[in-house]
Amino acid sequence: MSETENKLLQKEMTSSDYYWNSYAHFGIHEEMLKDSVRTLSYRKAILENKAIFKDKLVLDVGCGTGILSLFAAQAGAAHIYAVDSSDIIIQAEQIIADNNFSDKITCMKGKMEDIELPVSKVDIIISEWMGYFLLYETMLPTVLKARDKWLKPGGIILPDQANIYLACIEDGDYKDEKIEYWNNVYGFNFSCIQKMAYREPLVDVVNADSVVTAPSKILSLDLNTCQVGDLTFESKFSCVAEKTDYAHAIVAWFDITFSRCHKPIYFSTSPSSKYTHWKQTVFYLRETLTICEGEIISGIIGTAPNAKNERDLDISIHVDFEGKYQSLHATQEYVLR
Amino acid sequence: MSETENKLLQKEMTSSDYYWNSYAHFGIHEEMLKDSVRTLSYRKAILENKAIFKDKLVLDVGCGTGILSLFAAQAGAAHIYAVDSSDIIIQAEQIIADNNFSDKITCMKGKMEDIELPVSKVDIIISEWMGYFLLYETMLPTVLKARDKWLKPGGIILPDQANIYLACIEDGDYKDEKIEYWNNVYGFNFSCIQKMAYREPLVDVVNADSVVTAPSKILSLDLNTCQVGDLTFESKFSCVAEKTDYAHAIVAWFDITFSRCHKPIYFSTSPSSKYTHWKQTVFYLRETLTICEGEIISGIIGTAPNAKNERDLDISIHVDFEGKYQSLHATQEYVLR
Repeated sequence: MSETENKLLQKEMTSSDYYWNSYAHFGIHEEMLKDSVRTLSYRKAILENKAIFKDKLVLDVGCGTGILSLFAAQAGAAHIYAVDSSDIIIQAEQIIADNNFSDKITCMKGKMEDIELPVSKVDIIISEWMGYFLLYETMLPTVLKARDKWLKPGGIILPDQANIYLACIEDGDYKDEKIEYWNNVYGFNFSCIQKMAYREPLVDVVNADSVVTAPSKILSLDLNTCQVGDLTFESKFSCVAEKTDYAHAIVAWFDITFSRCHKPIYFSTSPSSKYTHWKQTVFYLRETLTICEGEIISGIIGTAPNAKNERDLDISIHVDFEGKYQSLHATQEYVLR
Repeated sequence: MSETENKLLQKEMTSSDYYWNSYAHFGIHEEMLKDSVRTLSYRKAILENKAIFKDKLVLDVGCGTGILSLFAAQAGAAHIYAVDSSDIIIQAEQIIADNNFSDKITCMKGKMEDIELPVSKVDIIISEWMGYFLLYETMLPTVLKARDKWLKPGGIILPDQANIYLACIEDGDYKDEKIEYWNNVYGFNFSCIQKMAYREPLVDVVNADSVVTAPSKILSLDLNTCQVGDLTFESKFSCVAEKTDYAHAIVAWFDITFSRCHKPIYFSTSPSSKYTHWKQTVFYLRETLTICEGEIISGIIGTAPNAKNERDLDISIHVDFEGKYQSLHATQEYVLR
């Protein structure tokens, strides 16, 4: 096959009904539902906190299949408004009806910003807004706008705390497969593809034993107070080498806390945590670092929405390293898309 | 995340330059290049047949990254016309230049049907046109039209023979995970999703030891003579049970032959063959068959382009089974998309 892209493009443009009712397209929802770290954390946060939900008005931002709204209904919420801009809402509505919660959950299709709720305020906002690298294709700006417009003073957002971390990894074998490969493709030079490969971080599973430095936190968000502008940030990092090794890439991950539960609920997407569909995000360095235990890899990471496509993230990483065997002061630009 | 689909849709619609130059989008080409069964078969068919290619005019239909054209140039072709309608042609052109074959290979962007070659006929057509289930999103009609318009009488098409086969498989565990799952999603009834799941065949790897019947050939194509109409077909099948077991699904695969090589080159995508990116195609049966060794599962399979989206395939499978423990006469409709 070639021409695949044009086919995909044309496929995307076919009639909504036909397309959105396809199961193939449902794959991302299947993946999210079956991500038990994700879904069980939400379930726990909701069902183990019935006291918080009882008789409350709840807004589910980006409801997808409606699973969080169903949990909230089970937890005794007075009413839930489940909003999604995609046609997945058709399935959500059917699922909610099939589970006899149509009187408790109102599905609303549209952009959250344009939706008019039939109530003036809600008590609780639930949302699963996290993307790769936390912020990729994120609904977080939508959640923050919904908070400002619809959440009662003192109302609860679940989850409400998020952090992003970095560390360095030894990743020679996989770098060979994903990057060096393009130097020799059946004897041909495909280096123009390699240039593209360096520019785009890879979303993939990183083994915990590949991590060769301590982590460094680069962002901390409190959804109760943060603003959309906080998602464009520049942050210093400093990672201490925990072994004498090589560093081929920087890995990023995030963690999430539901701090307003009776007992805070937490999950992490770090390399040493259980698999999630977010995996980790890997930024390959053009130059491999030769590091000794105790040396420090520091630098600055900046992220901003891509100018041409605001759903994509421009990420710039500047590395400062003065080691026994090597010094490096270099900046690489990435686009997560 | 939710809203994912809308994001994808919008992404597909962003400016071509920006989008098609993204590495993420290059994934399908990486997968195809790294499919060594596929790519090495073509390489062998071309490089071990230099006598066929020497000083010949070659047309590469749907050239993608240009790998087949590069092989043909190495084999001594006089000139190669590499045609693709997608912007991958930008990369192909760069790769061809980086490998110093720009004087031998002319990249042409456009629909094959609209392209005007600077020669009246070519000696050889090479194309990797095969999709899932052989015919999904296939470029085969394009190849056949190119044959009728551009190939010299007696000219060579590589590859030129293709067959599709069916067999029954025991697949209880995976059926539980992919189909039965929807009966109980964290305690909720998602059966409306199950209905969608039954309708769409699954492209996935089937283990050879899951196959419980002999195969039955359902289609045989000779690209030298076949017509576009042959791709809409109805065919009888008859599979003899090779063990006493259960049959949860029908699996389909194809094989490919380059019959015009000095020595024919062949590869198969069957469950017992080496992995290819085409994997196999699985059609789950609503009713599990209880089969005894020697019993026959017969029926009729029909395929036609979907009326709403001609790139998708409507596939109808009628099963006739009269076994010791069970009889079944039922038809299921599928859409491969």
